[in-house]
Parts: sequence; structure tokens; C-alpha cells
Amino acid sequence: MTASTSAPSGMPSLPIETRSLGERSEAMIGALASISAEPDRLTRLYLTPEHKRAAHLVGDWMRRAGMAVRMDAAGTMHGLFVADADGGSGALGVRAARRRRRLLIGSHIDTVIDAGRYDGNLGVVAGIIAVEEVQKRGIPLPFDLEVLAFGDEEGVRFPRTLFGSSTIAGVLEPAMLDLVDADSVKIGDALLAFGGDPKAAPHERYRRADVAGYLEVHIEQGPVLEAAGEPLGVVSAIASQGRYRIRVSGQAGHAGTVPMALRKDALAAAAEIVSLVEAIARKGAADSLVGTVGEFRVSPGASNVIPGSVALSLDLRAASDAARAAAAAEIKRGIGDVAAGRGLPISLDAVLEKPVAICAPQLRQAIGQAISEVTGGTPRELMSGAGHDGHAMIHLTDIGMIFVRCRGGVSHNPAEFVSVEDQGVAIEALVRTIALLGGRQI
Amino acid sequence: MTASTSAPSGMPSLPIETRSLGERSEAMIGALASISAEPDRLTRLYLTPEHKRAAHLVGDWMRRAGMAVRMDAAGTMHGLFVADADGGSGALGVRAARRRRRLLIGSHIDTVIDAGRYDGNLGVVAGIIAVEEVQKRGIPLPFDLEVLAFGDEEGVRFPRTLFGSSTIAGVLEPAMLDLVDADSVKIGDALLAFGGDPKAAPHERYRRADVAGYLEVHIEQGPVLEAAGEPLGVVSAIASQGRYRIRVSGQAGHAGTVPMALRKDALAAAAEIVSLVEAIARKGAADSLVGTVGEFRVSPGASNVIPGSVALSLDLRAASDAARAAAAAEIKRGIGDVAAGRGLPISLDAVLEKPVAICAPQLRQAIGQAISEVTGGTPRELMSGAGHDGHAMIHLTDIGMIFVRCRGGVSHNPAEFVSVEDQGVAIEALVRTIALLGGRQI
Repeated sequence: MTASTSAPSGMPSLPIETRSLGERSEAMIGALASISAEPDRLTRLYLTPEHKRAAHLVGDWMRRAGMAVRMDAAGTMHGLFVADADGGSGALGVRAARRRRRLLIGSHIDTVIDAGRYDGNLGVVAGIIAVEEVQKRGIPLPFDLEVLAFGDEEGVRFPRTLFGSSTIAGVLEPAMLDLVDADSVKIGDALLAFGGDPKAAPHERYRRADVAGYLEVHIEQGPVLEAAGEPLGVVSAIASQGRYRIRVSGQAGHAGTVPMALRKDALAAAAEIVSLVEAIARKGAADSLVGTVGEFRVSPGASNVIPGSVALSLDLRAASDAARAAAAAEIKRGIGDVAAGRGLPISLDAVLEKPVAICAPQLRQAIGQAISEVTGGTPRELMSGAGHDGHAMIHLTDIGMIFVRCRGGVSHNPAEFVSVEDQGVAIEALVRTIALLGGRQI
Repeated sequence: MTASTSAPSGMPSLPIETRSLGERSEAMIGALASISAEPDRLTRLYLTPEHKRAAHLVGDWMRRAGMAVRMDAAGTMHGLFVADADGGSGALGVRAARRRRRLLIGSHIDTVIDAGRYDGNLGVVAGIIAVEEVQKRGIPLPFDLEVLAFGDEEGVRFPRTLFGSSTIAGVLEPAMLDLVDADSVKIGDALLAFGGDPKAAPHERYRRADVAGYLEVHIEQGPVLEAAGEPLGVVSAIASQGRYRIRVSGQAGHAGTVPMALRKDALAAAAEIVSLVEAIARKGAADSLVGTVGEFRVSPGASNVIPGSVALSLDLRAASDAARAAAAAEIKRGIGDVAAGRGLPISLDAVLEKPVAICAPQLRQAIGQAISEVTGGTPRELMSGAGHDGHAMIHLTDIGMIFVRCRGGVSHNPAEFVSVEDQGVAIEALVRTIALLGGRQI
């Protein structure tokens, strides 16, 4: 991946200095990682003093990269690079004469508690370095570039998420401003203290006609690329997701005195459900179907008492709404059979249903070609099982995502790790994606 | 069950006044139930002031029933009725000439927290009423009768149980005196405060030659008799019991980003174990085999995280040690298969293994005949899945138990209920059992 020459302008031919891109990225990631609410671990929640310090650092970098910088009403940092080459033609050129569109490149700078350093932050750093590279290489573009550093992707401080990207995409629900954190501080008040403006948030909405698309580089947060031995992947979609609550109501009893034939063991029924979910999800690999029972509370939970009830969660995700709905229906039928077979009631309630956000074919195609140029391989398409700002941005424009391999698939953990080399190829692929899109009418 | 005549002496012929026996019992049960540590529910733990008040009430009743009363070093109340008829013959008569043996009749007067009123208490009350009936009916006996009211069968206050019956049976481990309760009070010190004497406890041991057997009336605490429509049952054995801890070590991961094929889901593995335990236990009905997973803790337990580990308990009981050991071995093999199939470690450790306590054939036979005389039916034999003082007493002498139907099989709960009629037939069966044993050489 590392070599010593790069072309002076336009698309360079391989090999290129991907490692030096990675080294610049790693240094910036390190600087951001030092900004935390806690001395010994990384915790940077939305609208906190450390979020502000990180936003200012990102703003400084944007400025040095030649961008016009502003913080918006929701606390999102915007860095606008006005491309001086027009390079446009046809319809795009006509539009550019009126008002140049912007290709948005973003991710988030908030973190979970005791976080890894790459989640979100890598995408913002990659966007800034890509803007520098576009200038350095003199890549002509028919659109401007705008780097966005969102502040609320993790949803740790407040009970909802994607406040920043929802604002820009125009899908912010007014009620979200009244949400409170654990100390009963409203988002609206936290925003005022931060330097934002809750009243102005609705005005931050972008017009669809002004935007050329949204790109995001993000760590995979899963093990697929590592298992495949590939540094990068093309995201096909951000998963369709459903979250359900299941409650099994059996009958508690003495572990010694109730014969097996007379039991209504809620745990035995719930165990069947867990096995059922696993079996159905395993059949859906073609649809990237995954099914998880993560919460599982058994009552009363004593070694000598037959469990009387079990409350469990079900999380279903798939690359299409239809695949997820079909799996949910099959699980529901299976649960009905368990309930009937054991003569005990089992309830299932949906608590969240998020439709799939499908990445735009032309962005996937450009990302795939760019990855293939950088890595020499056939790029792998994979679903993003995790949520991202793209889930809001798709209400505004086409979205495309580049996934970057992370060690062991580990994320939301200090052990999160992306190699310098992989950061480098990711940024190189982003630069090439921008260039490819610039050469087309997107 | 209820009629108006009873024979003046010897074994009365049916019908008899079983209902009035039940009414006397119910009144005494009510008096005991009013003695609690808490105003609105029944809680009477070992060596507490309420235990002492209950012991004094029992002592009063014993005295009024013509018994010599004493509290022993472990806080157990003893009521000795010296039968004045010798009635003995053969070997028994020879022994009686030396020193008359005692037929022990007992149960416990401690309770769990928020207890039912019949568990334990019914057996003590039944013993006292039976001694009254033996005198009233002039039943000649070749042995004396001793009613025992133990104080530590539930094991709620201290981490071990059967302190009283272990003392008499001579199986008290000296280390038990150092066990502490939740307030760090040692059994030994609590015993001194109660009026007992920890140093004298080893001297309370009875000699095997002095004892003719041990009988206990106890509520079933399970649903078998109710399901069969029978008020009484003959206990075949106090179950062989094993308690095990199982730990499944998987790999936590993001519920959205780890494909099914790459998961090491600890909950999915643990669910297989639960199903396995149930399937194996269901096959063992002939051995009264029951298997229960009661504790089940899933970590980290969040809806969007694949479970990384599960800690679960396994409780296995059967009517024979061999049946329990065979089931444990089969479960262990099955767990090995789950671990191998999923490529994740699962540990299984035994934390308790109690051998079966088999009720003596001649006592079972006498109890069965007595029940059959009282109810007119063929008596049902059933295993006691719950532990009882007999588990200690069997180290001293033969044991026999009469189980009494309780509504819904519910116990350890204020809803625990035994009808007046069932209490009456239980006491009548106990009286007849004593009489039958008195007519034989036991």
C-alpha cells in the first residue's frame, strides 16, 4: 500500500503514499482521543465541554485545510471547501452556474462511555484529509465539498440520537428539543449553553437541490472485513431494524416437588424462543439477517425455584425491510407454537421499527471502483448492522459509506483498533470516490 | 370423612371424627401462625424471639397432652409421652424391659420469610394431637412416643440447615456452630441467647437402640396429590439431589454487525442446555427425576449486545442416587457436545450432592395401610423432592413420612392451604400408623 510517488494532479496511478495519509489520520485521531471527560478513558458526550473542545479542534483543522468553518444551531461543525475548478458539464454545469451543489462528507465526534478512538472520529478526519488531498492533487470538481462533524450519533446522553444529521436533513422532530439527560437537562438548554440555538435548528435544513450526496467513512464495528482479509468494504445499506419485547408467563414452583409433566417453566419456553430466533436468523444470511436476544431476565431467579416468568428482548436486522418483516413473522408464528405447545401465554410487542436506508447505487458503484483501484481486489459489499448518521441523511440525499476493517470487529471499547495502513487506504479510497463522482454527473 | 361415632378404645372402625381432628389442628395452626417477626406476614426464623414464643406454645400443648417437656441444647422442643401399656412381645418386649424405646414424631416450627402456615407446623401439631388420641383411645404401645419440634429446617437465617435434627441424629458438624447470619451473629451465640447450649449439643445425640423410628407428617409442597385427587400419600424417599453451577463463556458483540456465522453467542448455547436438561428430566418420570435451571444470569444483558456469558444453576433430583447420577452424566455429555459444536467453553461444577434418604419399607407399609383404612383408596407412593428433617434423622433411625395434599402445590407462600378435612385424615392416618407399628415388632 505504501510507495513513494504520487501524481501531481488528477487521479494518481498506484502505488501511492497511502501510509502517509494513514499517519496523518492517526495523529489527528490521537489528538481527538485526548479530549475526554475522564482522564483515563475516552468519554465525549453530546453538548459537553469536551464535545466543544473537540469541535474547536476540528474547526481549526478545517480552516487550515482551506475550508470556511461554522458551527450550526445543533452544534454540528461545517467545513465548506469551494472547489475552484468547475469541471462541470451538461445539467450539472447548468446547476453549478446557478449555485454549486455540495458533496457532503461526514461522521460524528461524540463517543460512547469508555469508547474507542476511531468510531465516528475517523470519518471526520478522513473528510478533512480528503479535502486537503483534493486540493493538493488539483482534482477538478463540479461541486463543492462540505465536511460535517456531527455531535450526536451515539445517543448516550439523551434518549434519542442523530440530532445533528436530523437537523440538516430536515427530519428533526420538535419534541426532541424537550428530551432530557440523566440530570434532567433538556437538549434545548444544553444546546444554548453549548453555543447553539434550538429555535434556529429548523432553519438549518438543507435543500435537496443543493446537495450532491452524502459520503461517510466509518469503521465496520464488526468482524466481516477482517475475516475476509480485506481492509475496505462498500456498505450496501444501513440495516432495517426491529426491536421487540417478549414476555413469557409461566408458573413458579418448587424445583423439587413439581414433576416435569406438571410444570409451566417460563425459562424452558424462553430457551425454545432463543433457539428459534437463532435458527431463523441463520437461514437469512443472503439478506444479512441477524437476530439477537440480548436482554434476558428470569424471575424469580433462584436455583431451587422453577422460573415463573422471563422478559427478553429481540433485535432483528436485515438488508431489506421485507426480509426483516418475514423473519419477524416467522418468529412470531414459532412463538405462537411454543405458547400453544406449553399452554402458557407469551406476548411480543414491537418497540422500534427502523426502515432500511439503502445506499445509492451510483455511490456504491463509485466507492467500489475506488476501493478496487486502491486495494486491487474486488470490493465486498456488506450491510451496516449498526446505525449511522446516514439513516437521517437519506431523507435529504443519496448516501454512500466506506467501511474500514477494525481488529476483531471490536468497537465501543478502548480496544477498538484500525491500523495506520487501513486508515490510509480508506482515505485514499474516499479521495478517489470524490474524484470519480466529480468526473460524472451525480 | 366426617362422621359422628368413634370407638372408645383400640383401633376405631370407620367412620370416625376426622373432621374434628382437623378442626383442632387448624386452631393450633392458626395460633402458631400469629407468632411472627412481622405484623402482616408470617416470618419465624431459627433462634429468634418469635421462635422462642412458638416453642413455648408448643411446650404448653405438649404438657397439656400429658407429655414431659424439655428444650434441648439446639433449641428443639421435646415432648415425651410414656405409654403405660407394655403390649410388647418377643424381642421388642425384651428390649422394653431394659429401657423402652421411643417412636419419634416430628417436624419443624421455623418458617421461611412471608411463609405459609402449614409447612412444618402441621407435622408438630399432628404429633401432639396424635399423642392425645393415642391416650383417648387407649391404644396400647410397646414404645414411648416423643414429639419433636425442630427449629431449623428452612435454613433461611443461617447458610446451613437441619441443625436440630442433626444434633439428635449425631451428625452435627462442629463447624456448623461457627456459621453466621446476615448480621454476623454466630449460631453458637444465638443459641446461648435463646437458652440453648452449643457446648452441650453433641451430648443430645440419641442412641440408635433407644429409638424405634421417626415419623413426620408434612404438606406435599407439590401438585401431585391434588392432581391425583388424593388427600394423603406415602413418601418413598427424600430425593437424591445435586446442585451444579454452569458457566458458558461466549463472545460479546454488536447485535447488528456480527453475522450469525461468526457469533459465539453464550445465550444461544445456554438455551440449548436448558432444553437439554428439560428433555433428559422428562424421560426420567419413572425415577421421579426433575431437572431445573432456576438461576440464569446473562451478561452484559443489553438488547443490542450479543450475550458474552451466561451463568446458570442446575438442580437435579431423583428417587435414587443412580438415576440422578445417570441424568447428571447425560447432561454433562450433552453440554460437552454444545461446547464442541459451538466452539466455546462451558464449565460445570457440582456445588452440593445429597444422597437419597429412602423411607423404611416397614414404615411405608404401615403408613400405606393406615392411609388406606382412612381414605378407602390405594395409597400413592411419591418422592419428596423437597428436603426435610428426615434427611438428618435417617442417620439415627428408620424414617417414614405422610404427605398431605396442599392446594395448587403452593408452599413457601401465604397462599399455602391445607383443608381442615385433609388435616383431619392426615392426623387419623398418623394415629393409625402409630397403632399399627405398636402391634408389630418394629
